[in-house]
Amino acid sequence: MDINNYIRDLCSAVRVAAPSIASASTAKKNAALSAIADGLHHDCAAILDANAADLAAAAENGVPSTMLDRLRLDEKRINGICDALRELCTLADPIGSGERWVRPNGLCISCICVPMGVVGMIYEARPNVTVDAAALCLKTGNAVVLRGGKEAIATNRALVASMKASLVSVGINPDVIGLVERTEREGVSAMLTARGLLDVVIPRGGAGLIRTVVENARVPVIETGAGNCHLYVDESADLEMAVKVAINAKASRPSVCNAVETMLVHTAAAEQFLPAFARAAKEYAIELRGCPRTCAILPDALPADERDWETEYNDYILAIRVIDTLDDAIAHINRYNTGHSEAIITTSRAVAARFQANVDAAAVYVNASTRFTDGGEFGFGAEIGISTQKLHARGPMGLRALTTQKYLVEGDGQVR
Amino acid sequence: MDINNYIRDLCSAVRVAAPSIASASTAKKNAALSAIADGLHHDCAAILDANAADLAAAAENGVPSTMLDRLRLDEKRINGICDALRELCTLADPIGSGERWVRPNGLCISCICVPMGVVGMIYEARPNVTVDAAALCLKTGNAVVLRGGKEAIATNRALVASMKASLVSVGINPDVIGLVERTEREGVSAMLTARGLLDVVIPRGGAGLIRTVVENARVPVIETGAGNCHLYVDESADLEMAVKVAINAKASRPSVCNAVETMLVHTAAAEQFLPAFARAAKEYAIELRGCPRTCAILPDALPADERDWETEYNDYILAIRVIDTLDDAIAHINRYNTGHSEAIITTSRAVAARFQANVDAAAVYVNASTRFTDGGEFGFGAEIGISTQKLHARGPMGLRALTTQKYLVEGDGQVR
Repeated sequence: MDINNYIRDLCSAVRVAAPSIASASTAKKNAALSAIADGLHHDCAAILDANAADLAAAAENGVPSTMLDRLRLDEKRINGICDALRELCTLADPIGSGERWVRPNGLCISCICVPMGVVGMIYEARPNVTVDAAALCLKTGNAVVLRGGKEAIATNRALVASMKASLVSVGINPDVIGLVERTEREGVSAMLTARGLLDVVIPRGGAGLIRTVVENARVPVIETGAGNCHLYVDESADLEMAVKVAINAKASRPSVCNAVETMLVHTAAAEQFLPAFARAAKEYAIELRGCPRTCAILPDALPADERDWETEYNDYILAIRVIDTLDDAIAHINRYNTGHSEAIITTSRAVAARFQANVDAAAVYVNASTRFTDGGEFGFGAEIGISTQKLHARGPMGLRALTTQKYLVEGDGQVR
Repeated sequence: MDINNYIRDLCSAVRVAAPSIASASTAKKNAALSAIADGLHHDCAAILDANAADLAAAAENGVPSTMLDRLRLDEKRINGICDALRELCTLADPIGSGERWVRPNGLCISCICVPMGVVGMIYEARPNVTVDAAALCLKTGNAVVLRGGKEAIATNRALVASMKASLVSVGINPDVIGLVERTEREGVSAMLTARGLLDVVIPRGGAGLIRTVVENARVPVIETGAGNCHLYVDESADLEMAVKVAINAKASRPSVCNAVETMLVHTAAAEQFLPAFARAAKEYAIELRGCPRTCAILPDALPADERDWETEYNDYILAIRVIDTLDDAIAHINRYNTGHSEAIITTSRAVAARFQANVDAAAVYVNASTRFTDGGEFGFGAEIGISTQKLHARGPMGLRALTTQKYLVEGDGQVR
């Protein structure tokens, strides 16, 4: 079958099933999440077998070790996934909440929170996302079409089979979860053009995926996860704090989107700060790429060029640029950033306020690491991704981001 | 100059000016709106001259009379526009509002409402939209690029020149309003692909424009105004009310998006209801196009086909289909509707509840006309358009729809 038809058939089947979850009560949805947790626990051995097969195939195909680590499941990780499901049960259900008002003509208007309908998730070979994403969609009354990275296909099949069995056990149509089992690249484009079948597509992945999405999407999308983040060390900075935060923002987990990629340093602080930072960076073997003024201070740094300002390394590499003013720092950030997370280290309230007002990003930090941009760290209890767009949701997305609204209007024959 | 470069240069100039309005206080923004109202009043003669030139050219080019009416300004209409501007001053400014919380690690997080940045508006030859849209954008701290229908270009030039002069008078950079003066069709596509320059594009227009937008947009868009709306007359309906509401929903203003295009009638009500409705419809010369069962009851009705169910007539034409069950009505609506406004006439609370829960649209009415879907009628005080999408905004869009959010995080050196 043509991949476009395959995707359309799959999405259609999920769409037909969607009312089964959209109309489910909070209690029933939580029962489904509990059943899924119990089921995954029960099916642990089968899931790990499938995962072992995926891992063996991936290793044979030369998949890099960081990717293998994300692909790997073990009993502890499955328990972690189950704990997250039980945690999700305790969160408030946004569906049905809203406001109600009466107009002078007697019309009674309610604006209530309703599910999106069918959510498409496109993501990499990370089996935990398969369960996380499905669970967040179910909690918000949405059906979901899952398209994970091809390296995880056996694991995803096992996970989805387990979840579907649990849905049946609580009386929800198992077709509210659809897994794209054909993982050719064209399936992504087919999802992105499935107008009328998918209400929103949420891509989670690197720059390449986001580019594909921007160029091909005909359905509404929420872009997530592109993070060319900056740390600006102002002339007024506490330099000890600046070293500590910079090292954390770069090196605590370089592969994630909230890690810093470029550091901007005020010229008045550079002579003192850069050598101290470079000493600390050595411990993490961070490769430094600097502008000419940086290289003059740090002879070991490699020369940076335009591409370095544009690049999300996701690695132990940091670009560094010495700048003359706060405005230059803001201009650099607004030119090269991806709207994710930006930070300043300063002791000046006035400088901090100008930075926060003028930097255009989802999260703007003063004297803290960009690594905190995360639904859990923000206190949301759950996260479907980090939006880098301004429409609909911006920053870490909790349950609300998976919902829309509907106006219910009641009258007794009013006409206009 | 190539039209793409022209649009990019214009958007860039507006973008550079944007901080001038983004950083303006509520008082300053309201002063700007008042100054614009005063200015339009003062420049009334010049604006009407320009409008007369547009009208003469349009009449010569055979523009239809309904369109000429929308293009026409007179002193009364300009006064109406000025009144709306003064009304807008009284509305609460959403910018800067938000929430603030402290995390266990001491991080202080605020989530505040901020402007989108630069809004692109694409609309038809309706000069009032030029002022309305600009004013709503300014009130919410946004710069705006206006692209109105080519028939209104002289009027739009006069309006924008007047508004710019008023902005200067209150110390705001006049480039926060940009008018696309080159009205070739390709300019629309150029706006839709101006990534990084326009933060959102709001198209207001017919099915053709919406199609162009869906196929070409590379910037975030909010689709508005496509309204294939339905009225369902249930077997339990008060038939007198049904006739009154149906006539209002179709004939009070057929050219607008919240008018009804197809009426569905329960088979048990059809024999009694349809002849009564047809008698009333005759007064408005409404052309009726029916399914075979409708035509059997109403011999004067023309036969309807698949295209009729899909069409937004925007005219004195109504498609009618007799259906067997509530579920059939819901299925028809969910298949053909554009997510705008749908209504049921029923005396049964249970039927009403099922209809409201299962029909997928921005506004779902019980015993009232779809014509109420409007920011003013809903009590929002202002409206930039009616969103038919689920992302970001759905239904009548007030000031909030022109804003996004930003997380401001303050720490004292926290790392993760």
